[in-house]
Parts: sequence; structure tokens; C-alpha cells
Amino acid sequence: MTTQMIILNGGSSSGKSGIVRCLQAVLPDPWLAFGCDSFVDAMPAKMQASDEGIVFAADGGVSVGAEFRALEAAWMEGVVAMARAGARIIVDDVFLGGAASQQRWQKALRGLDVLWVGVRCESAVAAGREVARGDRTEGMAASQSDVVHEGVFYDLEVDTTRTESLVCARTIATHIS
Amino acid sequence: MTTQMIILNGGSSSGKSGIVRCLQAVLPDPWLAFGCDSFVDAMPAKMQASDEGIVFAADGGVSVGAEFRALEAAWMEGVVAMARAGARIIVDDVFLGGAASQQRWQKALRGLDVLWVGVRCESAVAAGREVARGDRTEGMAASQSDVVHEGVFYDLEVDTTRTESLVCARTIATHIS
Amino acid sequence: MTTQMIILNGGSSSGKSGIVRCLQAVLPDPWLAFGCDSFVDAMPAKMQASDEGIVFAADGGVSVGAEFRALEAAWMEGVVAMARAGARIIVDDVFLGGAASQQRWQKALRGLDVLWVGVRCESAVAAGREVARGDRTEGMAASQSDVVHEGVFYDLEVDTTRTESLVCARTIATHIS
Amino acid sequence: MTTQMIILNGGSSSGKSGIVRCLQAVLPDPWLAFGCDSFVDAMPAKMQASDEGIVFAADGGVSVGAEFRALEAAWMEGVVAMARAGARIIVDDVFLGGAASQQRWQKALRGLDVLWVGVRCESAVAAGREVARGDRTEGMAASQSDVVHEGVFYDLEVDTTRTESLVCARTIATHIS
Repeated sequence: MTTQMIILNGGSSSGKSGIVRCLQAVLPDPWLAFGCDSFVDAMPAKMQASDEGIVFAADGGVSVGAEFRALEAAWMEGVVAMARAGARIIVDDVFLGGAASQQRWQKALRGLDVLWVGVRCESAVAAGREVARGDRTEGMAASQSDVVHEGVFYDLEVDTTRTESLVCARTIATHIS
Repeated sequence: MTTQMIILNGGSSSGKSGIVRCLQAVLPDPWLAFGCDSFVDAMPAKMQASDEGIVFAADGGVSVGAEFRALEAAWMEGVVAMARAGARIIVDDVFLGGAASQQRWQKALRGLDVLWVGVRCESAVAAGREVARGDRTEGMAASQSDVVHEGVFYDLEVDTTRTESLVCARTIATHIS
Repeated sequence: MTTQMIILNGGSSSGKSGIVRCLQAVLPDPWLAFGCDSFVDAMPAKMQASDEGIVFAADGGVSVGAEFRALEAAWMEGVVAMARAGARIIVDDVFLGGAASQQRWQKALRGLDVLWVGVRCESAVAAGREVARGDRTEGMAASQSDVVHEGVFYDLEVDTTRTESLVCARTIATHIS
Repeated sequence: MTTQMIILNGGSSSGKSGIVRCLQAVLPDPWLAFGCDSFVDAMPAKMQASDEGIVFAADGGVSVGAEFRALEAAWMEGVVAMARAGARIIVDDVFLGGAASQQRWQKALRGLDVLWVGVRCESAVAAGREVARGDRTEGMAASQSDVVHEGVFYDLEVDTTRTESLVCARTIATHIS
């Protein structure tokens, strides 16, 4: 079977984006990359500070509402449809709901061949990288570090704490069929 | 019938992005926005300078290859699938192939209820706005201004030459059912 | 005398940045551009939400504290020193304090040959362009539109309400000696 | 004596920007940050592809012309003037000319109290991080890794190969008086 989609899950500042770009560079085929950031960019700006949409609290907490969930479900259907239509797809996501978030993807996937990848990073290191990125709101890295992995199963886990993005990407690439 | 998708077509610097953001602000429902820019961002960086991908020439010309077309077809299927799954979608595109580009969308749409919008801007004004944006490569605005509309049909056309984005958006909004 | 510096003042979304890029394109010499945005980017991220630094309120209001003012005074001295050292400089600023803001610049300028340019835009049009930019916080354009010009003198005023950035820039360029 | 300026030198993708943001976060006073990137942003867009300005070659090579050097000298004078006026300043630069680049800064500094910091990163690791950043042009990291340090003296060197930005910043902070 051919891997049609790679889904990476990890907390904020765990290094997902760097791994995605390295995967796009090292994999011989062209893979399209989507993720929670590009999904939020596609939403109306007014939903980024609405209880119905997504709220980023001053302490780094993130909460999402009913309209966000409805749009997200449709977006997942669309991303999966791209894979079904023949594009190879990499998704990076933050499973704020742990296993429940993974189940939302599985519902949309319906038998598509997916490689599930957990992206780990020690909480203190991720928090330091958040500072290095200069984000005005600190605290997301620490608060998401563990909860996003609760009850989630993976085909493969990588840890960016002491391993470069490119090395993680090469490891993942060996699991692509 | 309910409008499920709005597709805007216009040349570079014709003002599509501004209209899209205004539409997202004035329409009461939350609409997701995608376009050729977000599609190019989803591609591997290496395809942005490859004959198989997309090449931006020094004179403002843009050419795309076979791999680009294959990924684009899958991406169109996915965007349409999001609309079918219930999300309302705005797409802004540059129909480099004129009528042929519109036919590619129609093939994917298969009866979805779409509002087709042409975004016009006098070539000299679009070229001036390209300078104001500070893009390093000039010439895209002038070279795309007319060809993107050749043979394309619209439900509605707006012209940003002397009309603000927000006013154009409000006009478009009155055509949404 | 040779114009050593151009200082543009106008409210948020009045079109200053576009005019600056057009000036850099049409003026035969290379001019360096600095402004309140690049100054805020140079500050520590933590000052962008601190009473001592700069606070952007949810209603579009902006307030700055004592540390901001001290750093700004030193920054102004440095920008003027670049001009004295022979670089031609364009500054775009938002005179939140009106005449008092202009006096802060004059104190630093000490006889440098400056062209003062007021950038006007009808409040409603600027507010619409703010929506088109997709900023999450709306209200800055409307609240700054008039107050930034109170008591300020200019060599020249331009109005972007119905005039393109490039045309405004060409008008300004004719006043450069 | 009080440290008035910190100047970091290192090749592309060696991790300077992350260290700068961490320094701004951990140092108790507010420090302003400038660097070669913000300087290039201040230049006219047309100089970014001109022999007189700065040219980024497809192989990662960078060359600068006479107009670039003249503007840079004035910019250095201005940055130093900000420090003289009381702002504490962090500069990150890429000494393409090695010792000659450092001498250009020294000429402008004239006795200012500066902490010189070398930022090292193993060439292969920097090249990998360049891939992770998704830059379209690869090769800058490898080509600059060593030459930028030739003949340059430092008060302190840090190595980001196996040390996080925040840890490097804390080490640098202990050398600030």
C-alpha cells in the first residue's frame, strides 16, 4: 500500500513545522502541506477572537467553539478528498482534545492509508523555543506539551529535544511506503 | 438555492485579497478563504523554482508545469469537498489560462452552486499598486491584467480602479443567496 | 539645499507604507525607510503588551509608556544620525500626540533639511482599508484619522482617499531638492 | 562600565535571531534589536537585485555593491548614535568580509562599550536548519559557516549546534555589565 497522508501531532513549539518543511525537501514526490495554522488563516479574522471561533488566552490557553468545530470538520473532509484525488498530503495538527481529536480525523479518513507521527519535545525546551520565536503570548508550549498526546496512538514517534528537524524527517521518510 | 462557493478571478494586484477579507468581515456566516497563494504555500519550496512546479520569471511572467497541474487538480477537488461538507468557501484565483482555467474548476464543481466574480482593475493602476506593495519582481500586474479574463463568464464583475475593496465586497454580498 | 529626510505623518491605514515603497521606487537615489512599525519590531516582544511599553487596546486605542518614550527618543537620534552621515531617509510615523510628536522629531533634527508630508485619508475609507487588511483589531484607522494632524505643520499634504499611492509619491518627489 | 551594545556575528541559519529574541526576553532592561535583515528591509526593493545593492545568487552566495556599502556605513553610524543616546542595542550581523566587517563596526563605535559575541554552528547542522526554515535558496548556511569568523575577535563565543538559544542567551547575559 502507498502512504497517502502523514499526520503529525505535537504541542506548540514542538518543531512540527520544521519537520514538515524537511519532509517536503527530502521526499522524492511533491507532498502538499496543510495544518492548523493554515486552517486558522483561512477563517475570518473576526473568528480569531470569538467564543464561537478560536480564543488564544493571555496565559497560552486555547479554546475553540461550535462554529470552529463545524468548519474544521468540513476542512478535514476536504484535506482527505485531496489525498483521495491523488495528492500526497502532510498535515500538522495540535490535538488539543487528545484521543478525541484523533477520532475526528479517523472519521474523515475512512480507510485512507495514513502514517501517524507523534512529535515530542521536553516541555522546558519547547517553552524556550517559544521565547526564541518571540511570540507575544508565552505558555502555549508548556500547557500543550503533554495533553495533546493523551490516548493518541502512533506508527512512529520522534523527539526534537535533542534531534534536528532534518534527522527526524529522514526517520519518518523511512516509514513511507 | 444557497451559494456554496464564491470564486473570484483577477490579475495580480487587482485587489482580490482585500475583497476576500472584506467579504469575510461583512458576510454574516463564517466563510473559509483559499486561493492560489495558499496553494503555492502548501507546495514544497523546491517546486517554486522548478519547471515541473511554478516559475516566476524576472519580467513578471508565470509558468507552471505538469506536477503543478496534477496537484492543483487534487487541491480543487478538496476545496470543493469542503463546500460539499457544509463549509461556505471563498476562492481567489488567477486564471492564467482564461477559459481553460475556469473549465478546470467547473470539472471539479459538478453542480455546486457557485457565484463567479470577475475582479477588474485598469492595468496602469494595478501596476502602480504592485509598486506600492514593494514586490521585487514587477510586471505581473500588467501582464495578467487582461488575459486572465479571456473567454471567462461571470455572474458579476467588480472594478477596483476607483472603488474600494469594502464597497466591492458589499456589492458581491448582495448576490449571495 | 538637499532634502536629507522625508517625514510622513498619517493615521493607521491612511496609506503611508504604500507611498514609502513608491517613493523608494521613483526617487533616483536609494533612500532608506524606517517608521513606527520597524521601531516597534525592534523592541522586546514583552514591551508590546506592557504599560511601560506600548498597548494596543481592543477598541483600536494605542497608549505608550515612559520606557517607550525613552527608547523612541534614542531611536529618533539614531535615525537622524544616519541622515547626517549621508544616507537619505524616509520616515513614516503616526503622531499620536499631534504637534507634541512633531516637536519630538524637531528636537532631534536640529536643522537637518526635512520635507514634512501629511498623509490624509477620509476616516470611513481608511476604516474600510483596515478591514481589507484583515487586522484583527479594528478601530485604529477611525480613531487616529484626525488627531494625528492636530497642530502639525507640513510642507505638503497628500490625500489617498481618491489618489493612488504612486501618484502621491510622484507629487512628493517633485518637492525633493 | 555599562555594556551599551551587544554585537552577534554568525553565518546564516546559525541561530542569531533566536538568541536575540531570548536576550530581549531575559535581560531586565529593554534592549532594541537591529540587524542585517532589518537593514535590508529598509533599502529600496530595487536594490535587492542590483549589482550596486545586494544580490543573492542561486547557489547561496551573497555579494554587495558600492551603494550598499555607503548606506550601510551611515546605518552603522545611526545604530551607534542610538546607543550613545542611551538605548541599549543588540545587533546581529553576518560578517561576510570577516575581520574587515568587524573593522567597519569599530570605526563607527569609537570607544563605545561593546560585547562581541561569535555565534557558531556546525555547517551541516546549520544547513539542515536552512532546510527546516523552507528558504527557497539553499547554500547560504554552508557557504557562510566559517568565513564570517575569519580573523574576528570575540569576548565570548556560543555554539548552537547542541545548545538551545535560550541557554546561549543566558550565558551571554552573564557577561553584560
